[in-house]
Amino acid sequence: MTQLIADRRDIDFVLYEQLDTEALTRHKRFAGYNKKTFDMIITEARNFAIKELLPVNPEGDRIGVRLENGQVKVPECFHRPYKLFLEGEWTSLTEDPELGGQGLPVSIARAVAEYMVGANNSLVNYGLFGHGTGKMIELFGTEELKSLFLKKLYTAEWGGTMLLTEAEAGSDLNLLTSTAEKQPDGTYHLNGTKIFITNGDHDLAENIIHPVLARLEGAPKGTKGISIFIVPKIWVNPDGTLGERNGIACTGIEEKMGIHASSTCTLAMGGKTPCRGFLLGEENQGMKIMFHMMNEARLAVGFQGFAFASAAYLYALNYARERIQGYDIEAGKGSDPVTIIQHPDVRRMLLWMKAHVDGMRSFMYYAGECLENIGLAETDEKRAFYQGLADLFIPVVKAYSSDRGFEICAQAMQVYGGYGYSKEYPVEQYTRDAKIASIYEGTNGIQAMDLLGRKMTMNNGKAFMDFLGELKKTVAMAKEIDATKAMADEVEKAANKLGKSAMHLGSVAMAGGIKRAFAYATPFLEVMGDVIMAWMLLWRAAVASKKLAEGPKKDMDFYQGQLKTAEFFIYTILPGTFGKMDAINIANNAVNEITEAQFGG
Amino acid sequence: MTQLIADRRDIDFVLYEQLDTEALTRHKRFAGYNKKTFDMIITEARNFAIKELLPVNPEGDRIGVRLENGQVKVPECFHRPYKLFLEGEWTSLTEDPELGGQGLPVSIARAVAEYMVGANNSLVNYGLFGHGTGKMIELFGTEELKSLFLKKLYTAEWGGTMLLTEAEAGSDLNLLTSTAEKQPDGTYHLNGTKIFITNGDHDLAENIIHPVLARLEGAPKGTKGISIFIVPKIWVNPDGTLGERNGIACTGIEEKMGIHASSTCTLAMGGKTPCRGFLLGEENQGMKIMFHMMNEARLAVGFQGFAFASAAYLYALNYARERIQGYDIEAGKGSDPVTIIQHPDVRRMLLWMKAHVDGMRSFMYYAGECLENIGLAETDEKRAFYQGLADLFIPVVKAYSSDRGFEICAQAMQVYGGYGYSKEYPVEQYTRDAKIASIYEGTNGIQAMDLLGRKMTMNNGKAFMDFLGELKKTVAMAKEIDATKAMADEVEKAANKLGKSAMHLGSVAMAGGIKRAFAYATPFLEVMGDVIMAWMLLWRAAVASKKLAEGPKKDMDFYQGQLKTAEFFIYTILPGTFGKMDAINIANNAVNEITEAQFGG
Repeated sequence: MTQLIADRRDIDFVLYEQLDTEALTRHKRFAGYNKKTFDMIITEARNFAIKELLPVNPEGDRIGVRLENGQVKVPECFHRPYKLFLEGEWTSLTEDPELGGQGLPVSIARAVAEYMVGANNSLVNYGLFGHGTGKMIELFGTEELKSLFLKKLYTAEWGGTMLLTEAEAGSDLNLLTSTAEKQPDGTYHLNGTKIFITNGDHDLAENIIHPVLARLEGAPKGTKGISIFIVPKIWVNPDGTLGERNGIACTGIEEKMGIHASSTCTLAMGGKTPCRGFLLGEENQGMKIMFHMMNEARLAVGFQGFAFASAAYLYALNYARERIQGYDIEAGKGSDPVTIIQHPDVRRMLLWMKAHVDGMRSFMYYAGECLENIGLAETDEKRAFYQGLADLFIPVVKAYSSDRGFEICAQAMQVYGGYGYSKEYPVEQYTRDAKIASIYEGTNGIQAMDLLGRKMTMNNGKAFMDFLGELKKTVAMAKEIDATKAMADEVEKAANKLGKSAMHLGSVAMAGGIKRAFAYATPFLEVMGDVIMAWMLLWRAAVASKKLAEGPKKDMDFYQGQLKTAEFFIYTILPGTFGKMDAINIANNAVNEITEAQFGG
Repeated sequence: MTQLIADRRDIDFVLYEQLDTEALTRHKRFAGYNKKTFDMIITEARNFAIKELLPVNPEGDRIGVRLENGQVKVPECFHRPYKLFLEGEWTSLTEDPELGGQGLPVSIARAVAEYMVGANNSLVNYGLFGHGTGKMIELFGTEELKSLFLKKLYTAEWGGTMLLTEAEAGSDLNLLTSTAEKQPDGTYHLNGTKIFITNGDHDLAENIIHPVLARLEGAPKGTKGISIFIVPKIWVNPDGTLGERNGIACTGIEEKMGIHASSTCTLAMGGKTPCRGFLLGEENQGMKIMFHMMNEARLAVGFQGFAFASAAYLYALNYARERIQGYDIEAGKGSDPVTIIQHPDVRRMLLWMKAHVDGMRSFMYYAGECLENIGLAETDEKRAFYQGLADLFIPVVKAYSSDRGFEICAQAMQVYGGYGYSKEYPVEQYTRDAKIASIYEGTNGIQAMDLLGRKMTMNNGKAFMDFLGELKKTVAMAKEIDATKAMADEVEKAANKLGKSAMHLGSVAMAGGIKRAFAYATPFLEVMGDVIMAWMLLWRAAVASKKLAEGPKKDMDFYQGQLKTAEFFIYTILPGTFGKMDAINIANNAVNEITEAQFGG
């Protein structure tokens, strides 16, 4: 009965009852699949993740990576499961089978990823990073580059990375100083040092392909003058064979709070041995191309926060069902000790976790469906509609899920009490590992600015209006059902108030208060995330109510749990969100008015 | 200009402008001191902490403790600063000089502790734990026990601990199974295993004195049948000389998320060698006696959360003032890069941290003043008044400060961006170290139940009414000042609404909804903490306004900063608190209604 990492019943509910994933099989692209094969794939992923990936997760954390003679080595225990991960062809599930993928829908890939990422994120990331690099080459590369790299990257025979950050250019790529110089043979020589490069070096793949941002001589200042290059760790000859070791070397690895088994490298390019690369796309197009990968990466990072939270919730739930401590407060002192799940404060923690995990799961799959529909849309209008929603959701997925993910892991520690702080139990590692998600691929502050400054305003706010429109469809459905009508009213109020907050910040910014508005970028993202959670949970409750009305033979508990979870969120969490929206509508400007000196210190 | 660990100007403000610490010197007990000597002591503490304790904090974390042949060893680099810490006589500042203390007021001891704890909590705790053990012996011990142990514990020549927890008895001491058997010589033999014992063994002191909870044969069931024993690591002969190694041994140390330099031990009592102890107080009085120590420990743990937060805030602030990244959003793209403190979202993070750090500092010192006044009160009524406030505040100090402390440290990581996750910078260690504070000395859930179930109801709610009365004195003062009048109205509204929430939960509980009420124990503690923050910040702003009205020659920035900080909290954070109080007033019962099966998993 005890489940680990992800709740399979809940995944199935989202796939087949809340959303209609089965309908995808009617599309030509997915004609080779049916519900049964989808289910088999998810089951296989679960079994593999729990049997092979999860057991080495704590050891990976304990041992970490090490740099020896210029080569990064991952924990020895990673090699076997990594090989199995590649043999299982889990690395590019949604890609064209001809290019090394499996041609699966995004939603099924997400179900697989829940188990893989939740079981051992550091390990699977070594195998998943090639996809982002490959995607850029697929979209922007020459035929030569595609034939050299694409399949190797999608199958993870070679690894991929993302070389943006430099010591003085983190969130701000304007300050980037790495250079590239064109050579007579059409390749480029790169010089510079990149830091914080996830999977920048390791010994799981025979080659690693680095997309690198750098400046050509005479390029415009700022981000407009950045180009992107494909730099292999080992040079790849025109016939695909491996050539010489390229002049890119790991000069250090970062000691971090968590994700110890994930190598975070400093990479030096050039110097004694030239560092050779291919230009990808055209000169000075680096940022545009990199953003394709960045969007994928941001969705993946938000997903990490969610997957850790899901795993942490189930661990805490299982522990609370078994740990005996304290008496029932109604039965009083002297009564028999009970499992801690009997205590209201423990239930509050668990239900808070469950509400967010359930809500985030639905949101992850719903956002995935939007991505899928961009590709499946039959009209430009539809395509633009889904593209708009996806663009709007990306910063919320990234920031909200990583923030809540970290908080949920920390809350799981709290359920365990003293044991939660001990390395004997898995939740402290999840907490340390989860923290990175709010930082990398653009800090959550950057996401909030992206949401408020760019995504809210694109096409005169059309995507935001479309989002509210979709939400209101759920509200309308839930209003038709007795059990969810009152909750639907609350969610509608919340959505209307969110719209008002958005309008208010817009008018503040237009009246010259740009900084005043941006002081509320993060609070706005947070309340938008809360409203999305309320939406998703209401949707679940409405679907569950309908099922209950049919008098189901099984899963009564599951469906009733959906109603209680929505009720908890809407009446216990959402009132706080209303208050936070009040603060946005006040938009007090102390944050900007306080002078630097007045901060003290 | 750059300050570390704690803001000295702010400490002075709280001591001498918000509170009237100087007035204490008119009391006979503190007649040997004046403001100048207070200041010298704080300055010396700061210098010592920053010069000697802080530099070994990261190394302590990296190396951690190790168990070798049954003896726990602390990092080698701890020995010298620890010796200096003892030589400086920093261990029992508020105790009687005749017993090894310094006879200082609580508030000055807190100022010292800010620097010591913030610089290296693991190290100083080895020296501070003897105080709690000593206090119990002072209050409940025979003259023999006092003469044997008291001075050695207060001077930290010997260490102290607190042996409550067992594997099956964590939050619930009813389940405690360790036993004690009376011997013909009047001592006792103890048997059992204790876990999670902070400083349970180490090599910094020649002896360690353990207060141990255990059951005598035939004792009543539950906590009523628990007695407390004084168990030295090395037996102490009647003449005070050291005897044989006692039968208490460290059999394991815990690997933890943080506080790696603090030993967390499993201690086995009895077995081959008998474990001998002295009864403290009378039989079956263990819980009552231990609670004296527990209250001290809970205040200390809340203080840790605050001290880490203060240190993390200053690190983040200093970093934000130096780190150049991004452009001014009003000046637009292409303008010169700026320090990140110019960005609204970074300012929001910093001001959120500052508001809580400032508010918590005032709260810590105010609660300390209450404790001081219990001892100084000239009437029983006054004594009861301050005792009531102190009792009421203890769970809030413990839980609110540890929760916010952890969040502030994590927020500091966010200000650092990628560097925040790296061990190169101090904030990730503070975050890991801070997490324990929400767990040990009674999880924060236990604190919330203590607040709602016991502290709110004692003397028919008198302490809570007294607290609101004190708060309203500040409101009345602030209403007299133009700059703070509107803020005072908001704080008054918040206090009234908090009172209403308390009444509501009381009536829910009385109507048979005990579990329903306790589902809101933690939310209630949280909003009470928020209201206390608003009170403290309003108070600061009112004091600062008066100073500004006098046209001060210096510190204009400091005083104006007080106003901006209060404004931020009251208009940006407090609206969310109002919403959270709405949720309490709804008191939805989904938390208790959801069945165990409906949690899923």
